[in-house]
Amino acid sequence: MVSVAIMGHGVVGSGVAEIITTHKNKLFSSVGEEIYIKKILDLREFPDSPLADRFTKNFDDIIDDLEIRIVVEVMGGTNPAYDYVKRCLLAGKSVVTSNKELVAAHGAELLKIAKENNANFLFEASVGGGIPIIRPMNQCLVANIVNEIAGILNGTTNFILTKMITEGMNFDDALKLAQDLGFAERNPEADIEGHDACRKICILASLAFGKHVYPQWVHTEGITKITLEDVKYAESNKCVIKLIGKVKRLPDKKIDIIVAPMLIPKTSQLANIDNEFNGIMVRGDCTGDVVFYGKGAGKLPTASAVVADVVDCVKHLKTRKYLFWADGTGENILPYQKSVTAVYIRAKADDADKAYSEAESVFGTIKRLTRAGAENGEFAFVTDEMPYKQIEEKISNLESKGVKVLSQIRMGNL
Amino acid sequence: MVSVAIMGHGVVGSGVAEIITTHKNKLFSSVGEEIYIKKILDLREFPDSPLADRFTKNFDDIIDDLEIRIVVEVMGGTNPAYDYVKRCLLAGKSVVTSNKELVAAHGAELLKIAKENNANFLFEASVGGGIPIIRPMNQCLVANIVNEIAGILNGTTNFILTKMITEGMNFDDALKLAQDLGFAERNPEADIEGHDACRKICILASLAFGKHVYPQWVHTEGITKITLEDVKYAESNKCVIKLIGKVKRLPDKKIDIIVAPMLIPKTSQLANIDNEFNGIMVRGDCTGDVVFYGKGAGKLPTASAVVADVVDCVKHLKTRKYLFWADGTGENILPYQKSVTAVYIRAKADDADKAYSEAESVFGTIKRLTRAGAENGEFAFVTDEMPYKQIEEKISNLESKGVKVLSQIRMGNL
Repeated sequence: MVSVAIMGHGVVGSGVAEIITTHKNKLFSSVGEEIYIKKILDLREFPDSPLADRFTKNFDDIIDDLEIRIVVEVMGGTNPAYDYVKRCLLAGKSVVTSNKELVAAHGAELLKIAKENNANFLFEASVGGGIPIIRPMNQCLVANIVNEIAGILNGTTNFILTKMITEGMNFDDALKLAQDLGFAERNPEADIEGHDACRKICILASLAFGKHVYPQWVHTEGITKITLEDVKYAESNKCVIKLIGKVKRLPDKKIDIIVAPMLIPKTSQLANIDNEFNGIMVRGDCTGDVVFYGKGAGKLPTASAVVADVVDCVKHLKTRKYLFWADGTGENILPYQKSVTAVYIRAKADDADKAYSEAESVFGTIKRLTRAGAENGEFAFVTDEMPYKQIEEKISNLESKGVKVLSQIRMGNL
Repeated sequence: MVSVAIMGHGVVGSGVAEIITTHKNKLFSSVGEEIYIKKILDLREFPDSPLADRFTKNFDDIIDDLEIRIVVEVMGGTNPAYDYVKRCLLAGKSVVTSNKELVAAHGAELLKIAKENNANFLFEASVGGGIPIIRPMNQCLVANIVNEIAGILNGTTNFILTKMITEGMNFDDALKLAQDLGFAERNPEADIEGHDACRKICILASLAFGKHVYPQWVHTEGITKITLEDVKYAESNKCVIKLIGKVKRLPDKKIDIIVAPMLIPKTSQLANIDNEFNGIMVRGDCTGDVVFYGKGAGKLPTASAVVADVVDCVKHLKTRKYLFWADGTGENILPYQKSVTAVYIRAKADDADKAYSEAESVFGTIKRLTRAGAENGEFAFVTDEMPYKQIEEKISNLESKGVKVLSQIRMGNL
């Protein structure tokens, strides 16, 4: 019997307790012994839970219990999760977490502490919920040099964009629907401003390239400025708009990392990933493109990924699993202004045709897009690829000529 | 330093040698020691290989070498692969193989021998080439009860069907193109008759449900009878035709397993998996649908999966990895005649409208399909779901009324 503790009894935490209880036989046959939930830490009361006798409000009941070898952290946020996780690892307990904020902010440090204390620190559920991605990247693709990762990493924003694309719903209505259906929180900022996707691409980039990438180093744009007009122009260009987290290895070993909405060709494997689903493409030098698809969030998908990590910890109570990256300095990250991209631009002017000619003289070769029902004076085009700094300068230049740029969205060459 | 031997220096085998050589540093940083290719077994001569001094034509040089702890089997076929692999495992050497024929025919026995001799027997590359699937199913989805697996498991047939669907090429021309491009072998039978896909779904079913499923127990149909007319009717029903390997857990714990071409709705995640790519959907009770996509074959994708298994063996030289299923008796397999499915039927009669009415009286509710350019007397429809035996009986019944059934293809409710 292996005793575990679960810190947090919210959506994911209660799912972890449920799966360990309901899948007891399946888990027993996988690890050869029972996984026993000895303590559950939560400040709230759960008198009706079948595990009511295991609850505690005191972290000391977990850290001081030598029988507890594995601790699941599913509280979310970094306070007190960071402190608790650190203390568990220092005490030689293995930790499993679904907390992407924690891993993105403190992963390198916690992995180092785990290593020094011969414990495991696993976080499969922190990216892609129930989609296997951390372990496949770390183990199955170990004989590959990863050259690029691109993903739809946030289900909330993907649901909103899907409703805009397939049902012509505007952003506000789609957000409200997502909230009503439980796909978006009352305060949706972390999702719609791209912060959640940013944490996830940081974790994947750290794992793939071996140095911690902190979220504050990554240029991040959300989807709040996307309009139905943009969706229609994208459609006319055989594209869909998706919020993409992307990191690419450059020839000089720097990495180009960004979170932003992008126009994706409909032929891309990521274009058909709709609603609350997530999809992650990993481009290895040997495998080529491998794509992982599934529900990126939700109680049981996420909890089942947490429990799979618990099983791995049980199997590796003596030998550590190799999962590690070093701390980073940010020196290997290309400033986003230097990142080369083509951009879709929607603009307005008194005379659209004249303004389009101006845009041609400013940007060089551009591709004009059209849409049915365009307002008078509206026009849109796609530029050639160039460093983003040049795009910004050319937009300023164009605006100085009396053109108002309404939207600018990167082309995702995926 | 860990010494390995590679048995077979064909496409995959030479890829394994190449990756271990070219990715030396990456692999070293993953396992903490050098992976050294000590012997390569092949009856042919490779005087120009940089590893020319490692070649041998004598299996004894491998089996008798106590330094060789890990043996890679990439010869293909079962003779002499089965004998060699068995002897390696009996000698306590871990074995990694990409050989789906071997695993489908002898997996249970070889896993048992591996267990008894404290060795690992790993075969990630046997299904899906470079797509991670065995390890994710065995580890990441361990906290799930798998209810269904459905996949496009053979790149050759998927390439042929894609050309028929997107370019209107007929079967023979598409097969010839696949052969010219190296996607199909000169003798394409194992692919186009579904045997290759059958071996792979057998391996996945054995892994998911814990009992060996032998290929001879699985009803298997290939794609040689698919015509462009069928492709067009599928299109008119918003479907594409794909060769699907599928296994489903039934309420009575039996499994419903089959390999056959199916009409898949275009909205399915498997519908967009085109050309030589593979895709595998695993439906877990907690995760819901998870899809894995990538190149299912090819030198470096397959070889990189083999090398990932070698790395895992190096990490588990002392402790075994848990990967196991018991032998099977076939009792848990539903006879295919009892499998419930809807079917698309294309038929010909002197008077199509009259014959369609006959079909209605025979099958009950049916859905008529139409296509542009249909020949006189041709008609097509989709039946309701019923056991396949009933479908066959009703087809006989219909044919006794002067209707000639030209095609019958299952509807894949994916």
